[in-house]
Amino acid sequence: MSLLPRALQDVIDDLGKLPGVGPRTAERYAYYLLRTDPQKSRTLAHSLEHLHEGIGYCRKTFALVEKGQELSPLYTDPERDKTTIAVVAEPFDIVAIEKTAHFKGTYHVLGGLVSPIDGIGPENLHIKELVARVKEDKVKEIILATSASVEGESTALYIQKELEGTKVKMSRLARGLSVGLDLEYADQLTLTRALEDRQAM
Amino acid sequence: MSLLPRALQDVIDDLGKLPGVGPRTAERYAYYLLRTDPQKSRTLAHSLEHLHEGIGYCRKTFALVEKGQELSPLYTDPERDKTTIAVVAEPFDIVAIEKTAHFKGTYHVLGGLVSPIDGIGPENLHIKELVARVKEDKVKEIILATSASVEGESTALYIQKELEGTKVKMSRLARGLSVGLDLEYADQLTLTRALEDRQAM
Repeated sequence: MSLLPRALQDVIDDLGKLPGVGPRTAERYAYYLLRTDPQKSRTLAHSLEHLHEGIGYCRKTFALVEKGQELSPLYTDPERDKTTIAVVAEPFDIVAIEKTAHFKGTYHVLGGLVSPIDGIGPENLHIKELVARVKEDKVKEIILATSASVEGESTALYIQKELEGTKVKMSRLARGLSVGLDLEYADQLTLTRALEDRQAM
Repeated sequence: MSLLPRALQDVIDDLGKLPGVGPRTAERYAYYLLRTDPQKSRTLAHSLEHLHEGIGYCRKTFALVEKGQELSPLYTDPERDKTTIAVVAEPFDIVAIEKTAHFKGTYHVLGGLVSPIDGIGPENLHIKELVARVKEDKVKEIILATSASVEGESTALYIQKELEGTKVKMSRLARGLSVGLDLEYADQLTLTRALEDRQAM
Protein backbone atom coordinates (compact mmCIF):
# COMPACT_ATOMS: atom_id res chain seq x y z
CA MET A 1 0.00 0.00 0.00
CA SER A 2 1.39 3.36 -0.98
CA LEU A 3 1.31 5.96 1.78
CA LEU A 4 0.53 8.82 -0.59
CA PRO A 5 -2.26 9.24 -3.13
CA ARG A 6 -1.18 8.21 -6.64
CA ALA A 7 -1.59 11.76 -8.03
CA LEU A 8 0.81 13.15 -5.43
CA GLN A 9 3.33 10.31 -5.76
CA ASP A 10 3.38 10.89 -9.55
CA VAL A 11 4.27 14.56 -9.11
CA ILE A 12 6.99 13.67 -6.58
CA ASP A 13 8.44 11.02 -8.89
CA ASP A 14 8.43 13.29 -11.93
CA LEU A 15 9.88 16.32 -10.11
CA GLY A 16 12.54 13.98 -8.69
CA LYS A 17 13.88 13.54 -12.22
CA LEU A 18 15.03 17.17 -12.40
CA PRO A 19 18.80 17.60 -11.97
CA GLY A 20 19.87 17.80 -8.34
CA VAL A 21 16.36 17.16 -7.01
CA GLY A 22 16.24 14.28 -4.53
CA PRO A 23 13.07 12.66 -3.11
CA ARG A 24 12.93 15.08 -0.15
CA THR A 25 13.15 18.17 -2.33
CA ALA A 26 10.62 16.72 -4.75
CA GLU A 27 8.28 16.09 -1.80
CA ARG A 28 8.72 19.68 -0.65
CA TYR A 29 7.91 21.07 -4.12
CA ALA A 30 4.93 18.73 -4.53
CA TYR A 31 3.51 19.47 -1.11
CA TYR A 32 3.88 23.19 -1.71
CA LEU A 33 1.95 22.87 -4.97
CA LEU A 34 -0.69 20.77 -3.23
CA ARG A 35 -1.26 23.37 -0.53
CA THR A 36 -1.19 26.42 -2.74
CA ASP A 37 -3.76 27.63 -5.30
CA PRO A 38 -4.36 24.77 -7.79
CA GLN A 39 -4.00 27.37 -10.55
CA LYS A 40 -0.25 27.41 -9.89
CA SER A 41 0.13 23.72 -10.74
CA ARG A 42 -2.02 24.16 -13.82
CA THR A 43 -0.02 27.16 -15.04
CA LEU A 44 3.23 25.23 -14.61
CA ALA A 45 1.68 22.20 -16.32
CA HIS A 46 0.64 24.37 -19.24
CA SER A 47 4.11 25.93 -19.61
CA LEU A 48 5.78 22.52 -19.52
CA GLU A 49 3.32 21.10 -22.04
CA HIS A 50 4.27 23.84 -24.51
CA LEU A 51 8.00 24.04 -23.76
CA HIS A 52 9.40 22.13 -26.71
CA GLU A 53 6.84 23.13 -29.30
CA GLY A 54 7.52 26.84 -28.72
CA ILE A 55 11.27 26.67 -29.24
CA GLY A 56 13.54 26.42 -32.25
CA TYR A 57 17.23 26.84 -32.97
CA CYS A 58 18.83 29.57 -35.07
CA ARG A 59 20.21 27.76 -38.14
CA LYS A 60 23.32 29.95 -38.16
CA THR A 61 24.22 30.42 -34.50
CA PHE A 62 22.21 27.59 -32.84
CA ALA A 63 20.93 30.06 -30.26
CA LEU A 64 17.40 29.40 -28.96
CA VAL A 65 14.71 31.20 -30.96
CA GLU A 66 10.94 31.34 -31.06
CA LYS A 67 9.52 28.40 -33.05
CA GLY A 68 9.30 29.27 -36.74
CA GLN A 69 12.02 31.89 -36.51
CA GLU A 70 14.90 31.01 -38.85
CA LEU A 71 17.56 33.23 -37.38
CA SER A 72 18.29 34.68 -33.95
CA PRO A 73 17.60 38.42 -33.58
CA LEU A 74 21.09 38.59 -32.06
CA TYR A 75 22.40 37.54 -35.47
CA THR A 76 20.13 39.49 -37.81
CA ASP A 77 20.36 42.74 -35.82
CA PRO A 78 22.34 45.11 -38.10
CA GLU A 79 23.89 46.67 -34.97
CA ARG A 80 25.68 43.41 -34.18
CA ASP A 81 29.12 42.90 -35.67
CA LYS A 82 29.04 39.64 -37.67
CA THR A 83 32.83 39.60 -38.05
CA THR A 84 33.26 38.91 -34.33
CA ILE A 85 31.92 35.65 -32.91
CA ALA A 86 31.77 34.60 -29.27
CA VAL A 87 31.78 30.79 -29.19
CA VAL A 88 29.82 29.38 -26.23
CA ALA A 89 28.97 25.88 -25.07
CA GLU A 90 25.28 26.30 -24.27
CA PRO A 91 22.46 28.70 -25.20
CA PHE A 92 22.23 30.09 -21.65
CA ASP A 93 25.83 31.27 -21.87
CA ILE A 94 24.57 33.87 -24.33
CA VAL A 95 22.31 35.32 -21.65
CA ALA A 96 25.25 35.61 -19.24
CA ILE A 97 27.37 37.48 -21.79
CA GLU A 98 24.50 39.70 -22.96
CA LYS A 99 23.96 40.80 -19.37
CA THR A 100 27.43 42.34 -19.31
CA ALA A 101 26.33 44.66 -22.17
CA HIS A 102 29.99 44.65 -23.26
CA PHE A 103 29.80 42.48 -26.36
CA LYS A 104 28.46 43.70 -29.67
CA GLY A 105 29.44 40.76 -31.90
CA THR A 106 27.43 37.64 -32.68
CA TYR A 107 27.34 34.20 -31.03
CA HIS A 108 27.88 30.61 -31.96
CA VAL A 109 26.52 27.84 -29.71
CA LEU A 110 28.54 24.61 -29.83
CA GLY A 111 25.87 22.55 -28.08
CA GLY A 112 28.29 21.22 -25.48
CA LEU A 113 32.01 20.71 -24.93
CA VAL A 114 34.36 17.94 -26.02
CA SER A 115 34.17 15.32 -23.29
CA PRO A 116 35.38 11.80 -24.16
CA ILE A 117 34.10 10.47 -20.84
CA ASP A 118 30.53 11.48 -21.83
CA GLY A 119 31.05 10.27 -25.39
CA ILE A 120 30.99 13.81 -26.79
CA GLY A 121 33.53 14.28 -29.58
CA PRO A 122 34.12 17.38 -31.76
CA GLU A 123 31.86 15.83 -34.43
CA ASN A 124 28.90 16.09 -32.02
CA LEU A 125 29.33 19.86 -31.70
CA HIS A 126 28.48 22.66 -34.16
CA ILE A 127 32.13 23.17 -35.12
CA LYS A 128 31.77 22.52 -38.88
CA GLU A 129 29.12 25.24 -38.97
CA LEU A 130 31.47 27.62 -37.16
CA VAL A 131 34.19 27.03 -39.74
CA ALA A 132 31.64 27.68 -42.50
CA ARG A 133 30.61 30.97 -40.87
CA VAL A 134 34.22 32.14 -40.77
CA LYS A 135 34.18 32.22 -44.59
CA GLU A 136 30.58 33.33 -45.16
CA ASP A 137 30.69 36.24 -42.71
CA LYS A 138 34.34 37.19 -43.27
CA VAL A 139 34.98 36.69 -39.56
CA LYS A 140 37.95 38.60 -38.11
CA GLU A 141 37.87 37.51 -34.49
CA ILE A 142 36.66 34.50 -32.55
CA ILE A 143 36.41 34.71 -28.77
CA LEU A 144 36.35 31.23 -27.23
CA ALA A 145 33.98 31.90 -24.35
CA THR A 146 34.10 28.37 -22.96
CA SER A 147 34.52 27.65 -19.27
CA ALA A 148 37.91 27.25 -17.59
CA SER A 149 37.53 23.46 -17.28
CA VAL A 150 39.45 20.63 -18.92
CA GLU A 151 36.55 20.20 -21.38
CA GLY A 152 36.47 23.93 -22.11
CA GLU A 153 40.21 24.01 -22.73
CA SER A 154 40.29 20.97 -25.04
CA THR A 155 37.32 22.25 -27.03
CA ALA A 156 39.08 25.62 -27.45
CA LEU A 157 42.28 23.89 -28.59
CA TYR A 158 40.38 21.75 -31.09
CA ILE A 159 38.68 24.79 -32.63
CA GLN A 160 42.00 26.62 -32.76
CA LYS A 161 43.46 23.71 -34.75
CA GLU A 162 40.46 23.61 -37.10
CA LEU A 163 40.96 27.29 -37.94
CA GLU A 164 44.73 27.05 -38.41
CA GLY A 165 45.79 28.71 -41.65
CA THR A 166 42.91 31.22 -41.63
CA LYS A 167 43.59 34.82 -40.68
CA VAL A 168 41.04 34.80 -37.87
CA LYS A 169 42.30 36.33 -34.65
CA MET A 170 41.50 33.99 -31.78
CA SER A 171 41.23 34.78 -28.11
CA ARG A 172 39.70 33.28 -25.04
CA LEU A 173 38.20 34.77 -21.90
CA ALA A 174 40.79 35.98 -19.40
CA ARG A 175 41.42 33.71 -16.43
CA GLY A 176 42.02 35.51 -13.18
CA LEU A 177 40.53 36.59 -9.90
CA SER A 178 36.78 37.03 -9.65
CA VAL A 179 35.99 40.68 -9.08
CA GLY A 180 35.47 41.26 -5.39
CA LEU A 181 37.00 37.93 -4.37
CA ASP A 182 39.53 38.01 -1.53
CA LEU A 183 42.93 36.78 -2.63
CA GLU A 184 43.05 34.18 0.14
CA TYR A 185 39.94 32.46 -1.24
CA ALA A 186 41.21 32.09 -4.81
CA ASP A 187 42.22 28.54 -5.75
CA GLN A 188 45.87 27.92 -6.64
CA LEU A 189 45.25 27.27 -10.31
CA THR A 190 43.32 30.51 -10.78
CA LEU A 191 45.93 32.45 -8.84
CA THR A 192 48.71 30.94 -10.96
CA ARG A 193 46.89 32.05 -14.14
CA ALA A 194 46.24 35.48 -12.68
CA LEU A 195 49.97 35.85 -11.97
CA GLU A 196 50.99 34.64 -15.43
CA ASP A 197 48.52 36.92 -17.21
CA ARG A 198 49.24 39.92 -14.98
CA GLN A 199 48.49 43.20 -16.70
CA ALA A 200 50.72 46.26 -16.89
CA MET A 201 49.26 49.29 -15.13
CA MET B 1 13.72 42.05 -26.71
CA SER B 2 13.75 38.99 -24.50
CA LEU B 3 16.88 36.88 -24.75
CA LEU B 4 15.00 33.61 -24.39
CA PRO B 5 12.04 32.21 -26.33
CA ARG B 6 8.73 32.88 -24.59
CA ALA B 7 7.99 29.17 -24.03
CA LEU B 8 11.28 28.73 -22.17
CA GLN B 9 10.95 31.94 -20.16
CA ASP B 10 7.46 30.82 -19.05
CA VAL B 11 8.81 27.52 -17.70
CA ILE B 12 11.65 29.34 -15.90
CA ASP B 13 9.23 31.83 -14.36
CA ASP B 14 6.80 29.14 -13.22
CA LEU B 15 9.47 26.81 -11.81
CA GLY B 16 10.93 29.83 -10.01
CA LYS B 17 7.77 29.96 -7.89
CA LEU B 18 8.61 26.67 -6.17
CA PRO B 19 9.95 27.09 -2.62
CA GLY B 20 13.69 27.71 -2.50
CA VAL B 21 14.05 27.81 -6.28
CA GLY B 22 15.82 30.96 -7.50
CA PRO B 23 16.14 32.09 -11.13
CA ARG B 24 19.43 30.19 -11.64
CA THR B 25 18.02 26.90 -10.38
CA ALA B 26 14.83 27.41 -12.41
CA GLU B 27 16.99 28.00 -15.50
CA ARG B 28 18.92 24.81 -14.82
CA TYR B 29 15.71 22.77 -14.46
CA ALA B 30 14.16 24.32 -17.58
CA TYR B 31 17.25 23.86 -19.68
CA TYR B 32 17.53 20.25 -18.58
CA LEU B 33 13.92 19.64 -19.63
CA LEU B 34 14.55 21.39 -22.94
CA ARG B 35 17.55 19.19 -23.76
CA THR B 36 16.07 15.92 -22.63
CA ASP B 37 13.31 13.82 -24.22
CA PRO B 38 10.20 16.07 -24.63
CA GLN B 39 8.19 13.19 -23.16
CA LYS B 40 9.67 14.04 -19.75
CA SER B 41 8.19 17.55 -19.76
CA ARG B 42 4.86 16.20 -20.94
CA THR B 43 4.77 13.53 -18.25
CA LEU B 44 5.50 16.12 -15.58
CA ALA B 45 2.92 18.47 -17.09
CA HIS B 46 0.34 15.68 -17.00
CA SER B 47 1.08 14.83 -13.35
CA LEU B 48 0.83 18.48 -12.31
CA GLU B 49 -2.41 18.93 -14.24
CA HIS B 50 -3.98 16.09 -12.26
CA LEU B 51 -2.39 16.76 -8.88
CA HIS B 52 -5.28 18.38 -7.08
CA GLU B 53 -8.12 16.48 -8.70
CA GLY B 54 -6.65 13.13 -7.68
CA ILE B 55 -6.40 13.92 -3.98
CA GLY B 56 -8.84 14.04 -1.10
CA TYR B 57 -8.68 14.19 2.68
CA CYS B 58 -9.74 11.47 5.12
CA ARG B 59 -12.78 12.88 6.93
CA LYS B 60 -11.64 11.36 10.24
CA THR B 61 -7.86 11.79 10.27
CA PHE B 62 -7.36 14.43 7.52
CA ALA B 63 -4.62 12.31 6.01
CA LEU B 64 -4.26 12.52 2.22
CA VAL B 65 -6.32 9.89 0.42
CA GLU B 66 -7.20 9.00 -3.15
CA LYS B 67 -10.03 11.20 -4.45
CA GLY B 68 -13.39 9.67 -3.62
CA GLN B 69 -12.03 7.68 -0.69
CA GLU B 70 -13.83 8.66 2.52
CA LEU B 71 -11.35 7.28 5.01
CA SER B 72 -7.62 6.68 5.07
CA PRO B 73 -6.57 3.01 4.86
CA LEU B 74 -4.35 3.78 7.86
CA TYR B 75 -7.55 4.42 9.80
CA THR B 76 -9.80 1.65 8.47
CA ASP B 77 -7.10 -1.06 8.67
CA PRO B 78 -8.30 -3.40 11.48
CA GLU B 79 -4.63 -3.99 12.40
CA ARG B 80 -4.26 -0.36 13.46
CA ASP B 81 -5.08 0.51 17.03
CA LYS B 82 -7.77 3.22 17.00
CA THR B 83 -7.33 3.91 20.72
CA THR B 84 -3.86 5.37 20.11
CA ILE B 85 -3.56 8.52 18.00
CA ALA B 86 -0.39 10.19 16.78
CA VAL B 87 -1.20 13.86 16.23
CA VAL B 88 0.87 15.41 13.43
CA ALA B 89 0.99 18.85 11.82
CA GLU B 90 1.10 17.89 8.14
CA PRO B 91 0.19 14.87 6.00
CA PHE B 92 3.83 14.15 5.07
CA ASP B 93 4.64 13.67 8.76
CA ILE B 94 2.63 10.44 8.55
CA VAL B 95 4.99 9.10 5.89
CA ALA B 96 7.97 9.85 8.14
CA ILE B 97 6.45 8.00 11.10
CA GLU B 98 5.24 5.07 8.97
CA LYS B 99 8.79 4.57 7.70
CA THR B 100 9.97 3.82 11.25
CA ALA B 101 7.52 0.86 11.27
CA HIS B 102 7.31 1.42 15.05
CA PHE B 103 3.81 2.83 15.31
CA LYS B 104 0.65 0.76 15.03
CA GLY B 105 -1.93 3.33 16.10
CA THR B 106 -3.82 5.79 13.91
CA TYR B 107 -3.08 9.38 12.93
CA HIS B 108 -4.65 12.80 13.17
CA VAL B 109 -3.45 15.61 10.92
CA LEU B 110 -3.89 19.06 12.43
CA GLY B 111 -3.27 20.88 9.16
CA GLY B 112 -0.57 23.11 10.63
CA LEU B 113 0.60 24.41 14.00
CA VAL B 114 -0.58 27.28 16.16
CA SER B 115 1.37 30.30 14.90
CA PRO B 116 0.00 33.74 15.81
CA ILE B 117 2.58 35.41 13.57
CA ASP B 118 1.11 33.60 10.53
CA GLY B 119 -2.44 34.18 11.74
CA ILE B 120 -2.96 30.50 12.55
CA GLY B 121 -4.97 29.98 15.74
CA PRO B 122 -6.18 26.69 17.27
CA GLU B 123 -9.54 27.25 15.55
CA ASN B 124 -7.82 26.91 12.15
CA LEU B 125 -6.57 23.42 13.01
CA HIS B 126 -8.46 20.11 13.21
CA ILE B 127 -8.46 20.11 17.02
CA LYS B 128 -12.25 19.95 17.50
CA GLU B 129 -12.27 16.83 15.36
CA LEU B 130 -9.51 15.33 17.50
CA VAL B 131 -11.52 15.94 20.66
CA ALA B 132 -14.52 14.29 19.01
CA ARG B 133 -12.44 11.24 18.04
CA VAL B 134 -11.33 10.81 21.65
CA LYS B 135 -14.94 10.01 22.59
CA GLU B 136 -15.97 8.16 19.43
CA ASP B 137 -12.97 5.85 19.33
CA LYS B 138 -12.51 5.49 23.12
CA VAL B 139 -9.00 6.81 22.74
CA LYS B 140 -6.57 5.80 25.48
CA GLU B 141 -3.39 7.52 24.37
CA ILE B 142 -2.51 10.57 22.29
CA ILE B 143 1.07 11.03 21.12
CA LEU B 144 1.72 14.64 20.20
CA ALA B 145 4.10 14.11 17.29
CA THR B 146 4.62 17.79 16.57
CA SER B 147 8.06 19.23 15.90
CA ALA B 148 10.26 20.59 18.67
CA SER B 149 9.64 24.23 17.74
CA VAL B 150 7.84 27.01 19.59
CA GLU B 151 4.80 26.41 17.38
CA GLY B 152 4.94 22.67 18.00
CA GLU B 153 5.14 23.22 21.77
CA SER B 154 2.29 25.69 21.99
CA THR B 155 0.07 23.49 19.83
CA ALA B 156 0.85 20.53 22.10
CA LEU B 157 0.05 22.59 25.20
CA TYR B 158 -3.22 23.82 23.70
CA ILE B 159 -4.33 20.26 22.89
CA GLN B 160 -3.36 19.13 26.39
CA LYS B 161 -5.58 21.83 27.85
CA GLU B 162 -8.46 20.90 25.56
CA LEU B 163 -8.32 17.30 26.77
CA GLU B 164 -8.00 18.13 30.48
CA GLY B 165 -10.47 16.12 32.54
CA THR B 166 -10.49 13.18 30.13
CA LYS B 167 -8.63 9.99 31.02
CA VAL B 168 -6.52 10.09 27.88
CA LYS B 169 -2.85 9.44 28.52
CA MET B 170 -0.87 12.10 26.69
CA SER B 171 2.71 11.97 25.62
CA ARG B 172 4.94 13.77 23.22
CA LEU B 173 7.90 12.66 21.15
CA ALA B 174 11.11 12.37 23.17
CA ARG B 175 13.57 15.24 23.11
CA GLY B 176 15.65 13.31 20.64
CA LEU B 177 14.54 15.70 17.95
CA SER B 178 16.96 18.46 17.07
CA VAL B 179 15.40 21.75 18.07
CA GLY B 180 14.09 23.61 15.04
CA LEU B 181 14.20 20.59 12.73
CA ASP B 182 11.02 19.87 10.76
CA LEU B 183 9.58 16.48 11.56
CA GLU B 184 9.60 15.32 7.97
CA TYR B 185 13.39 15.78 7.80
CA ALA B 186 14.20 13.72 10.89
CA ASP B 187 16.16 10.52 10.20
CA GLN B 188 14.40 7.21 10.88
CA LEU B 189 16.57 6.20 13.83
CA THR B 190 16.08 9.47 15.68
CA LEU B 191 12.37 9.31 15.02
CA THR B 192 12.21 5.69 16.21
CA ARG B 193 13.93 6.64 19.47
CA ALA B 194 11.70 9.63 19.86
CA LEU B 195 8.65 7.35 19.55
CA GLU B 196 9.99 4.78 22.02
CA ASP B 197 11.01 7.39 24.61
CA ARG B 198 7.84 9.44 24.38
CA GLN B 199 7.26 11.23 27.68
CA ALA B 200 4.08 11.41 29.73
CA MET B 201 2.72 14.93 30.00
